[in-house]
Amino acid sequence: MSRLHKLGIEAIRRIALGSTVLGTGGGGDPYIGRLMAEKAVRECGDVELVSPAEVPPDACVFLCGMMGAPAVIVEKLPSGREAIAAIDALTRVLGRPVTHISSLEAGGINSMIPIAAAARTGLPMIDADGMGRAFPELQMLLPTLEGIRATPMSLVDEKGNTLVIDAVSNRAAEGFARTATVQMGATATMAFYPLKGSQVTRALVPDSISMAYRLGEALLLARQERRDPVAEIARQLNGREIFRGKIVDVLRRTTAGFVRGEAVIEGLGRGAKQALSLDFQNEFLVARTAERVFVSTPDLICVTDSETGEPITTENLRYGQRISVLGAPCFSRWRSAEGLAIVGPRAFGYQHDYVPFAA
Amino acid sequence: MSRLHKLGIEAIRRIALGSTVLGTGGGGDPYIGRLMAEKAVRECGDVELVSPAEVPPDACVFLCGMMGAPAVIVEKLPSGREAIAAIDALTRVLGRPVTHISSLEAGGINSMIPIAAAARTGLPMIDADGMGRAFPELQMLLPTLEGIRATPMSLVDEKGNTLVIDAVSNRAAEGFARTATVQMGATATMAFYPLKGSQVTRALVPDSISMAYRLGEALLLARQERRDPVAEIARQLNGREIFRGKIVDVLRRTTAGFVRGEAVIEGLGRGAKQALSLDFQNEFLVARTAERVFVSTPDLICVTDSETGEPITTENLRYGQRISVLGAPCFSRWRSAEGLAIVGPRAFGYQHDYVPFAA
Repeated sequence: MSRLHKLGIEAIRRIALGSTVLGTGGGGDPYIGRLMAEKAVRECGDVELVSPAEVPPDACVFLCGMMGAPAVIVEKLPSGREAIAAIDALTRVLGRPVTHISSLEAGGINSMIPIAAAARTGLPMIDADGMGRAFPELQMLLPTLEGIRATPMSLVDEKGNTLVIDAVSNRAAEGFARTATVQMGATATMAFYPLKGSQVTRALVPDSISMAYRLGEALLLARQERRDPVAEIARQLNGREIFRGKIVDVLRRTTAGFVRGEAVIEGLGRGAKQALSLDFQNEFLVARTAERVFVSTPDLICVTDSETGEPITTENLRYGQRISVLGAPCFSRWRSAEGLAIVGPRAFGYQHDYVPFAA
Repeated sequence: MSRLHKLGIEAIRRIALGSTVLGTGGGGDPYIGRLMAEKAVRECGDVELVSPAEVPPDACVFLCGMMGAPAVIVEKLPSGREAIAAIDALTRVLGRPVTHISSLEAGGINSMIPIAAAARTGLPMIDADGMGRAFPELQMLLPTLEGIRATPMSLVDEKGNTLVIDAVSNRAAEGFARTATVQMGATATMAFYPLKGSQVTRALVPDSISMAYRLGEALLLARQERRDPVAEIARQLNGREIFRGKIVDVLRRTTAGFVRGEAVIEGLGRGAKQALSLDFQNEFLVARTAERVFVSTPDLICVTDSETGEPITTENLRYGQRISVLGAPCFSRWRSAEGLAIVGPRAFGYQHDYVPFAA
């Protein structure tokens, strides 16, 4: 398949769809992000997409996106100016111009904000992201695994408040950014992880924008050709549908800048399996029955409408939805001991060890 | 009385004592601050004290001090490096060199940190402060009354975390700084309210360092000459002792970066008056009986040991202490409608109007 070189309206729609699947329930509402990116591209032109290998060693790369509770992002729409303000603030601190924008995570709104920011600044965007999926905390990015600092970082809100954080660890940066985000009304826009071009190939998950595009395209095509869209997603992700059923309970609370909760799904039909429960903290973390863990972080847990394959984010889970739950392997480096220390089950307070998911 | 021009060890002792009286229970432990200032002066030489009128119009003035719960400052000693780091961070943001240091409030540790910072940077200190007493929140400074912004401001902790805040209002700045301070372990050191020299005479309470010095000196002299030290404090502050008694109850809790609570004092001797209660949020806010309010913010409520006149901060209130409670008028501009909107009883959630205290 030929590489994407430009991101226009059509590409944005496919990437938004694919990223929302990869977002494993988190990353914010894809619809809002898509509107922001489409508006930016319409007004400022298509975005140039470059592969990590094409980035010059002396480039200055910023990751940008939003932080906070997805449920609130839906209610408090970002204007698009916030990302530019965040990029400007970080540029002033670093004292050198930014040359490339990249995505922090594949996930609804956070796959779109970098596109909007790249369009509005005229900067190229890198075909990569910091996670290869979405995770809820800002230290949970591949650069942390490489010993790269998240800070200096900037954090802005829609009112014009700006914070610049310089923290002694990426975990400390998460703490400061999270409390500031709560103070900002539960959502904030940030620019962070300033990377040198020479760090890009190691510190980012390569080709994830193309991957999201292909996934979105394949899903649309499967629907058009009346093939099973869920099976198509599983194929694209090298994953597998682990459960199909009806949501019978959703607990959701917005606390300390996160949306945390649990959904319970009952299998449909005679001989249906035991109920599956899905834990989430912005993203789906663990899929399990009373007896066993099926999939756990950092592997991907994707929830989609059983009929259409439309991905369902954690804030859009509703009683009675007929859903399919898919498991898929995460980016390989998250499976190392160092990776699991950052994003494995125990990093989220679970008492069980990680068992790699295999289709 | 001749003006002070240099701050050395002897002056520091008097200022620490006098400022703790003016600190109305807040501003942190004077002993710790005194040690920091004495060490800085011993190592780096005396500090030059200049009157507000002497500051050139193009001067760049920073206010600096600590934020947080005084009870925690006692347990987590600042090293003295934090203030320099805060000043450096704010200097980098502003892009021009700081020329003068000033005190944000008259209060135990916060009267001392600017002296230590001035000694270590070699900069002159202004004979003034931002409040003429101590208040618990960072928008409660005279510059706010003048429409001057508290930000950009810097906030640092002992671990090396640094935040730069640029907020749309001084109240918003308080919110961001307070939550960050909690994240930093309930105390932080800051540089803020960057002032032009031309703003100094309007935006600061003049001569408050000299005032603290004179108060400390008078108190020491009264003790030496076996005169009533409490009466001497009342005379210096144009105030009056409103109650003398024994502490019979102290409620104190550290929440959201403040120490809040209440102390109850019973009058001693036959015919003793009704119990007096003292509300505090870092500083004493209201002194009242069941029947009436005796003194309320922004007027000064000073609590001292009845025998020695030694000021007692809110974190040092103890059951059984024999104390005198004094009332004194605040700096006149706080008594305006605009001033009361920032620091009057209703600004702290009280339902009563301000009644000026008169000796």
